[in-house]
Amino acid sequence: MITTILVDIGDTLVRAAAPGTPVDALVAEPLPGVIPTLRALARSFRLGAVTDTAVMSEDDVRTALGGSGIAELLEVIVTSHAAGAAKPDPRGIELALARLGAAPEEALFVGDADVDAGAAHAAGVAFARVSDAVPLAAAVRGALTDVTGPFGAAQALVGPVDSDAERRALDHHDQLTKPPGSLGQLEALGVQLASIAGEDPPPRPVPAAVAVFAGDHGVLAEGVTPWPQEVTGQMVANFVAGGAAINVLARQAGASVTVVDVGVASDLDALGLDGAPGLLRRNVRKGTGNLATGPAMSEAEARQALDVGAAVAAQLVGDGARALVTGEMGIGNTTPSAAITAAITGRSAAEITGRGTGIDDDTLARKVAVVERALGRLPARAGAIDVLAEVGGLEIAGLVGFIVGGASHRVPVVVDGAIAGAALLVAHALCPEVLPYVVAGHRSTEPGAAAVLHHLGLVPVLDLGLRLGEGSGACLALGVLDAAARLLREMATFDSAAVKDAR
Amino acid sequence: MITTILVDIGDTLVRAAAPGTPVDALVAEPLPGVIPTLRALARSFRLGAVTDTAVMSEDDVRTALGGSGIAELLEVIVTSHAAGAAKPDPRGIELALARLGAAPEEALFVGDADVDAGAAHAAGVAFARVSDAVPLAAAVRGALTDVTGPFGAAQALVGPVDSDAERRALDHHDQLTKPPGSLGQLEALGVQLASIAGEDPPPRPVPAAVAVFAGDHGVLAEGVTPWPQEVTGQMVANFVAGGAAINVLARQAGASVTVVDVGVASDLDALGLDGAPGLLRRNVRKGTGNLATGPAMSEAEARQALDVGAAVAAQLVGDGARALVTGEMGIGNTTPSAAITAAITGRSAAEITGRGTGIDDDTLARKVAVVERALGRLPARAGAIDVLAEVGGLEIAGLVGFIVGGASHRVPVVVDGAIAGAALLVAHALCPEVLPYVVAGHRSTEPGAAAVLHHLGLVPVLDLGLRLGEGSGACLALGVLDAAARLLREMATFDSAAVKDAR
Repeated sequence: MITTILVDIGDTLVRAAAPGTPVDALVAEPLPGVIPTLRALARSFRLGAVTDTAVMSEDDVRTALGGSGIAELLEVIVTSHAAGAAKPDPRGIELALARLGAAPEEALFVGDADVDAGAAHAAGVAFARVSDAVPLAAAVRGALTDVTGPFGAAQALVGPVDSDAERRALDHHDQLTKPPGSLGQLEALGVQLASIAGEDPPPRPVPAAVAVFAGDHGVLAEGVTPWPQEVTGQMVANFVAGGAAINVLARQAGASVTVVDVGVASDLDALGLDGAPGLLRRNVRKGTGNLATGPAMSEAEARQALDVGAAVAAQLVGDGARALVTGEMGIGNTTPSAAITAAITGRSAAEITGRGTGIDDDTLARKVAVVERALGRLPARAGAIDVLAEVGGLEIAGLVGFIVGGASHRVPVVVDGAIAGAALLVAHALCPEVLPYVVAGHRSTEPGAAAVLHHLGLVPVLDLGLRLGEGSGACLALGVLDAAARLLREMATFDSAAVKDAR
Repeated sequence: MITTILVDIGDTLVRAAAPGTPVDALVAEPLPGVIPTLRALARSFRLGAVTDTAVMSEDDVRTALGGSGIAELLEVIVTSHAAGAAKPDPRGIELALARLGAAPEEALFVGDADVDAGAAHAAGVAFARVSDAVPLAAAVRGALTDVTGPFGAAQALVGPVDSDAERRALDHHDQLTKPPGSLGQLEALGVQLASIAGEDPPPRPVPAAVAVFAGDHGVLAEGVTPWPQEVTGQMVANFVAGGAAINVLARQAGASVTVVDVGVASDLDALGLDGAPGLLRRNVRKGTGNLATGPAMSEAEARQALDVGAAVAAQLVGDGARALVTGEMGIGNTTPSAAITAAITGRSAAEITGRGTGIDDDTLARKVAVVERALGRLPARAGAIDVLAEVGGLEIAGLVGFIVGGASHRVPVVVDGAIAGAALLVAHALCPEVLPYVVAGHRSTEPGAAAVLHHLGLVPVLDLGLRLGEGSGACLALGVLDAAARLLREMATFDSAAVKDAR
């Protein structure tokens, strides 16, 4: 297990000074993304730096790093001057590890140069290389993924949002040609986007990418829905063909739709989906077990689905997505969602369980009883992963990974509905820092969805009575989110427009 | 005053049969838009037809018009056979007028041919000519505009929406690949668009056009707002330059912004706006009178502003707009809006009057007192035009005309907020048939806006706490409206996608 991350400084954290720059002329400008990455890593790791400088002490380096915010995030800084040898000699790394009390096998060293790699090898620590194309976050993500998988890496890289950018966006809004506060929730959304991106005005959240995670549910054996299981696979085919509601809404928003088979029971090849574009075959298991009578899945399967979700987020962001939208499809999946939401919020099955896509009173009563039985099987003080595995669903686990993955890439994640809401509860339990990256797109009519919003204090963008799922409500909110960014980017100020300000 | 409209049939209402077509082989296919136009006109006019046919009686023609729906809308049908002479002889027109009890100067005749024009001239009735480029509605609108102005013409052309298309859209929604009703308000909006257009699937409401009506208010003398009057003109300049919130939101929606000076007090030339693109100079009066102490404007001025609004709607639809958005700017205009809304809904000034763009308690108390004084000046049983002139605003009157104009062109009109809401109340009072063409875009925080929604039974699309005006909330709703149309246009059905339907 990695407990300690050491980093080189020049060309890893800050642009390296030209050789021979006088010490008092050094200006430390952090490379893009370095500060938020270090802030995120500081949550889970001890951080230190090992840097080559013939003349400077730790204090000198801290002084040179000045107001950059970097020095405060590094517990130790070992210079070659202090270690008595420059890299690739391992002594600098060894001294840092000794000061942090970490064994070599618990450490990762990150640098840009062959001497960094050499020193790491000589010290027996893992090495990750940054370059112009691979910034610190990506290098660390790659190394941690090798050790812990995509979900663990994502979890480690979720950091706080940028409160400075948030404050700048708030001030900025008060200078725009409108009465202060008169754009209501659009102002709050714009400020949130600025805090996520660390920039004001924030970048537009476009293009967005919708990922529809699909899975089946053994609990169908209990008669919780009139829809047959085969519809999940048929709808996967419909998504791939572009004929479902989410496809229409995504086209309108200029968003891509990626369908992820994380737990579909049907034979998708038999539906002609072998090699279908836009479909990721990441099947962990062909449907869950019946959560009324036993575990929906093993913990290992749950973790595998978390990794699927985090990897999909990484892929979509790598392909250029600037906002992620949680979508899902799984006949019966409001039942595991209700069980998760009841378990985590502490509310009763009767309060949380709803009619899903539309069921009659008898079916609803059966569904409530099933959720009660599922909750009764949970051990006292079950952790979030236990809840997910015992009473969850594979597409829900995929969504958990996707939400954490999106937050780790510092893009807004737009969620909606009871299923993504249950996934968000699990994501939040595993990694509370995800919340400021999340935008609640729509208030579903499903009671579980309302419970999630209340539990997490989220105010949804839209309230249009949707109860479809697929990510439809979240996708529909993308236009409003983009508007929020564009208002900060494009509106004139009282000064620039020569409009008299009443205040 | 026109009380009676007579029409030719062949190539005016239906494609003319080839000469010599046997009577029992005639198939009457109404020309596009004819049925809704006749339905609209039947509300205000007596309708008859005068057609040349050597062999057919009125009953024969009614039989030939068969299931087209036209015959039922014509009170009398005079054939040349029955009149004893073909057009251009005036006897057919004269017989029709006699049967309808109308004098020639009260009548308008509409036809496509020189013989129609000749017969009208000989009978002493006004004539309007249809052609491939000028369908019935446009021909009648042109003739009525000459007599009553653009607003009167528009009012005459607002007809019922298409209940057949509405029913087809409802059925259609139940065949799409989703649980019935699961798209909530998006389904209702799509059905409304189908009923407005008379088509299922409905056309997309794009491009949309925003018209921002601007006017100033003498009531500023009462200290109802901290903003100085000059800001109205300055904001007009900001709109023209593209820097205001409505410009940003319109760009995002792909909508145009047209600014209409219907009552601005400032010298817009001095602001460099002489010949500015996107600005229509239709100033009726440089700001209203102080409604606390006397009429805001004369009835003639109110009617002139109604005409401005209707003419702007006609121009924008003529330029290709497929949805209209009501925008407004006028420092102080929540005060006349509150007065109108209180007068029409019968609620008290205190209930309706709000903080507008944000005022303190003292200013609010003053504003409520001003609205009370204004209401006290209104005569008992004041008509909607009286209310508009006495306590309204020029931009509000422009909006009334714009709403009625849009409905007369059978395009959706998206409104929001307290000011457009007050205009909608007046429009609805003058022409109740406008209501099904209206989409409430956003629930403003202003209490008057909520009162309008309640009074008219409208459910807004968005509820984002906006209180800016300009049409910002309505414009933001355009994306949702377009989504509603696209879902009906683009979604697969259970059959087409081979998805099993649970029902």
